[in-house]
Amino acid sequence: MSAEIHFIGVVHSPLKNIDDCPRQGDENAPEAVIEIFEAYAEAAKDIQQGQQLLLLTWLHAADRNALTTYPRNDASLPLTGIFSTRSPNRPNPIGLHPVGVLAVLGNGMFKVSGLEALDQTPVVDIKPVW
Amino acid sequence: MSAEIHFIGVVHSPLKNIDDCPRQGDENAPEAVIEIFEAYAEAAKDIQQGQQLLLLTWLHAADRNALTTYPRNDASLPLTGIFSTRSPNRPNPIGLHPVGVLAVLGNGMFKVSGLEALDQTPVVDIKPVW
Repeated sequence: MSAEIHFIGVVHSPLKNIDDCPRQGDENAPEAVIEIFEAYAEAAKDIQQGQQLLLLTWLHAADRNALTTYPRNDASLPLTGIFSTRSPNRPNPIGLHPVGVLAVLGNGMFKVSGLEALDQTPVVDIKPVW
Repeated sequence: MSAEIHFIGVVHSPLKNIDDCPRQGDENAPEAVIEIFEAYAEAAKDIQQGQQLLLLTWLHAADRNALTTYPRNDASLPLTGIFSTRSPNRPNPIGLHPVGVLAVLGNGMFKVSGLEALDQTPVVDIKPVW
């Protein structure tokens, strides 16, 4: 009972190590460049400066075997089921990132505001914010 | 450049055909029951009645080759890149569904409010609404 997810692009970010990552995008996350692969460029043709997007990523450094965790890595908090947390460590480590488009750079690249994803994180989908 | 997504549960819904589905969950979508598979039950242990959750599904009936579409299937609108729409037809058909938990039923089952997903749609993740 599974499906294959195809990476449609990749994150370029100054965040090179997991210890550099803020826990959420609103905690001083840096700007990043999103590269959409050429095979999917047509699907990204209407992305424009000033738009708010929901970026879906594949958090490739995550532990997929985690079922419980201490929220915010604080062991004084109750051990909590993963589906009640936003931990990246989960069976399917899909990251959801609301971002603003700061600039469209051409060649499938665009710059976004505060993104808490590591450099080289695969992108799996982009949706308009609802 | 791909990854394998593991289904963690399944939707039980009165929506049996794609023509029955409202386009968004706020358009009279019915209640549904979410079943979490036993292997992932521990991750769902803190889901409680009254919570607002973001359910991620795998929209298994989608056309994964679509790169552009007419928004809301209205051919008078401009042909639009898929990543600027919420069409289920997209390279990685991940559905995002904000739902309220109406009741926890035991055995990994819980009932949720308006869900615009077909019966037997695989569930891939659950996150708290942020």
